[in-house]
Amino acid sequence: MLSIQLTRSVNSRPLYKQIYEALKQQILEGILSEHDQLPSKRELAEYLHVSMNSVMSAYQQLIAEGYVYTKERRGYFVEALDAFIAVPGEDVFPEELVEKRSSAYQFSFSHMNADASLFPFRAWQHSEQQALRHYAGSLDNLEHPQGQWLLREEIAKTIGRTRGVRCRPEQIILAASTQWLFELLSMICDKHALFAVEHPGYQRIYQQFHAAGRPVCPVSIDQKGMNPRELEESGATIAVVTPSHQMPTGGIMPVSRRIQLLNWSYKEEGRYIVEDDYDAEFKYEGDPIPALHSLDDLNRVIYAGTFSKSLLPGLRLSYMVLPPALLAGYKEQASHLMQTSSSLIQLALYVFIKNGEYQKHIKRMSKHYKTVREQLIEALHETFGSSISITGEKAGLHFLMEINTPLELDIILEKAKERRLELYGIERFRLKESTPADQPPTVIIGFARLRSQDVVSAVSLLYHCCFDET
Amino acid sequence: MLSIQLTRSVNSRPLYKQIYEALKQQILEGILSEHDQLPSKRELAEYLHVSMNSVMSAYQQLIAEGYVYTKERRGYFVEALDAFIAVPGEDVFPEELVEKRSSAYQFSFSHMNADASLFPFRAWQHSEQQALRHYAGSLDNLEHPQGQWLLREEIAKTIGRTRGVRCRPEQIILAASTQWLFELLSMICDKHALFAVEHPGYQRIYQQFHAAGRPVCPVSIDQKGMNPRELEESGATIAVVTPSHQMPTGGIMPVSRRIQLLNWSYKEEGRYIVEDDYDAEFKYEGDPIPALHSLDDLNRVIYAGTFSKSLLPGLRLSYMVLPPALLAGYKEQASHLMQTSSSLIQLALYVFIKNGEYQKHIKRMSKHYKTVREQLIEALHETFGSSISITGEKAGLHFLMEINTPLELDIILEKAKERRLELYGIERFRLKESTPADQPPTVIIGFARLRSQDVVSAVSLLYHCCFDET
Repeated sequence: MLSIQLTRSVNSRPLYKQIYEALKQQILEGILSEHDQLPSKRELAEYLHVSMNSVMSAYQQLIAEGYVYTKERRGYFVEALDAFIAVPGEDVFPEELVEKRSSAYQFSFSHMNADASLFPFRAWQHSEQQALRHYAGSLDNLEHPQGQWLLREEIAKTIGRTRGVRCRPEQIILAASTQWLFELLSMICDKHALFAVEHPGYQRIYQQFHAAGRPVCPVSIDQKGMNPRELEESGATIAVVTPSHQMPTGGIMPVSRRIQLLNWSYKEEGRYIVEDDYDAEFKYEGDPIPALHSLDDLNRVIYAGTFSKSLLPGLRLSYMVLPPALLAGYKEQASHLMQTSSSLIQLALYVFIKNGEYQKHIKRMSKHYKTVREQLIEALHETFGSSISITGEKAGLHFLMEINTPLELDIILEKAKERRLELYGIERFRLKESTPADQPPTVIIGFARLRSQDVVSAVSLLYHCCFDET
Repeated sequence: MLSIQLTRSVNSRPLYKQIYEALKQQILEGILSEHDQLPSKRELAEYLHVSMNSVMSAYQQLIAEGYVYTKERRGYFVEALDAFIAVPGEDVFPEELVEKRSSAYQFSFSHMNADASLFPFRAWQHSEQQALRHYAGSLDNLEHPQGQWLLREEIAKTIGRTRGVRCRPEQIILAASTQWLFELLSMICDKHALFAVEHPGYQRIYQQFHAAGRPVCPVSIDQKGMNPRELEESGATIAVVTPSHQMPTGGIMPVSRRIQLLNWSYKEEGRYIVEDDYDAEFKYEGDPIPALHSLDDLNRVIYAGTFSKSLLPGLRLSYMVLPPALLAGYKEQASHLMQTSSSLIQLALYVFIKNGEYQKHIKRMSKHYKTVREQLIEALHETFGSSISITGEKAGLHFLMEINTPLELDIILEKAKERRLELYGIERFRLKESTPADQPPTVIIGFARLRSQDVVSAVSLLYHCCFDET
């Protein structure tokens, strides 16, 4: 008879489960061989002092999984199973893959943050509640690959009003990330279409294309933005630019350059400009600069926006506005790809915008960022004196700071890390070798997660990182 | 002097904005030519009967955008701008791209649904609140490309307990969609790695690879699942299978086939099996079948799960468990791609699972689905009599139904559409031409969004679609 050990205590697994597991193990290990007959239910039940039901449940589960088969009126038999052709080695999880929980930064000058502590979670939850009350049915399927119509409609209205982008909800594609939007774009565009990206510039798009083996080339920026001559010479079809606040230099592209880029796109069929308007909601001294899209009457600009800066990165919601010709391409080539952003977030955001909460938040945050930015610039000048030069501070949530110090950038960044100060250098944005090495160290100063009360301490810490010899 | 029309009423735009827009328009249209001097602030203010401040704001905005430049002590001048080299045609949005709001279905037999009306939104919102109270700080940056550690930890525990999948949180990658996980996989694996998918099978993965020009081939399934001989002959490196409940046939892969597939993967270095365990939470009569992953001691199975079926598709949350070797590849090749699923959703789900709400929901839904499924099968047999044959009903949220009717599948589907009954045929899952045309029409019967009280009406409607001549 079979050898099966059962544990009978309050916390032990159900008896049928123990029987099932013991038999399964013995079949897998070959202790029970193929076509061996198993005891009848009654026999096994009596032998193990369990109910017939327990044995029956165990047998049924073994049959369902294919360990055991029945022959009518003959009983239960072990299935013929191949032996595993390999034996496992020692199963040790590689040490280098173990995640170390990094200790949090004291202060952050990262350009990738928002301040969650200032987010109106109560209003958000209220919007979500309203959304659930009225539109919960939209959560049980993913009807539209482009995302919820209601939110697309609301975004169209909003960017029409605030960014001068005229479009229809049909042209809007929502997604969890700008990277996914670029994924979609590269599917819609010709496979050999060369994407030109700003250099220095946001490295993720470059990296994404580079890693996927798609044609991409960095085109230098000058004071005004992407260099149109270099763009023309690059042979690119799609130019990706950040006209409202260049990433990372912070430059605002003047209209003369905007017209030159538009004319570049008009010169040949199939040329497009992607306007990555990632933090255009925030502009100091004067009004926001209207989007490049608003100057384009020939549908050559693809407008991309995100709620990562205006709300929170953790919501995961970006969008792009496709010109009709590309929209048709999207429907043909890429609409089998399902929506990536959460419908719950989409619908909550729809209500949040509709109720005026979004605008209220932007207004509140603009005021907040303006204050922090002023305090920060003042503190930097006071602490660093004439050894720094700040540029790109007129808009957005970061600026550049060149530091006249004998220390090298790498050393500064290392010191910052040691002192738990989050800090990034401009090297991070260099997509090709091109800059004279003797330029003074330049760092990005993002202030989205800096609190007023921390400005002085953070700046002082930064100063020590830049000038302390040890 | 300039010709500028100002509107002064309660609702009109601010005067500085009107001045700015009028000047901008005239510069763009060439009415004001390059290097033309603009009137001084005082002159223009007097001429327009507005304050100096209004003119100053307008001039400053024009300077910020690059329409106007200043010469010290000489005044304001119009920038040199290129003319646009193209003139816009008529801007009509193509009729075929206009979205028609489709009328909702009366009943749905779709396999892609969940029932939002049964989702415990109150408990969810409560979990979200708790998550916000304790972890809101995790929303202001995207610290980890694999997603929130807390949720990964909780998922590892859950699938260990319910699916027999032993893994560490480090091995889990969260994403908004299973499609995105496959995107990542294809980056990690060798570029020429051939993916084998089940035929008939879930068409989205096939389509995704096919559209992207990546090597993919359909491998036929037989009664037990993917055919190992055909798989071997295909030259594939990665086999994508649905062992718990084959999509669409509903078959459960017996252990003999599981071992054959594992042995296939053990035969050559670099071979892997993707186990798409999309609806394994629901199994009727007996316990859920442990995952294929639980039989694999050599780290060759990539386990993929989703919360689309167990919770709601609209949350957008899937995950995969990578073997250590592929995890190392992921870190090298794909960790520049940011997390796509919302941290808010992730953290709420973490609390939801931790509080026991997830398990409670699964239990409640299992009971509900079991009831609806029984009622449905009974109603189908009662209404259709011997003209149908049902298979694949032992697990999951759909089964297959073959109908012995003179009508063709296309006609049936068309009738269903007319009568606002959501219904899909097996043709949707055929990835290659291979099946004898004289097979009776076969449809997928998904019951995730069917309510008990609608079963009889839905079945009756379906019957009419299958047998009515007109």
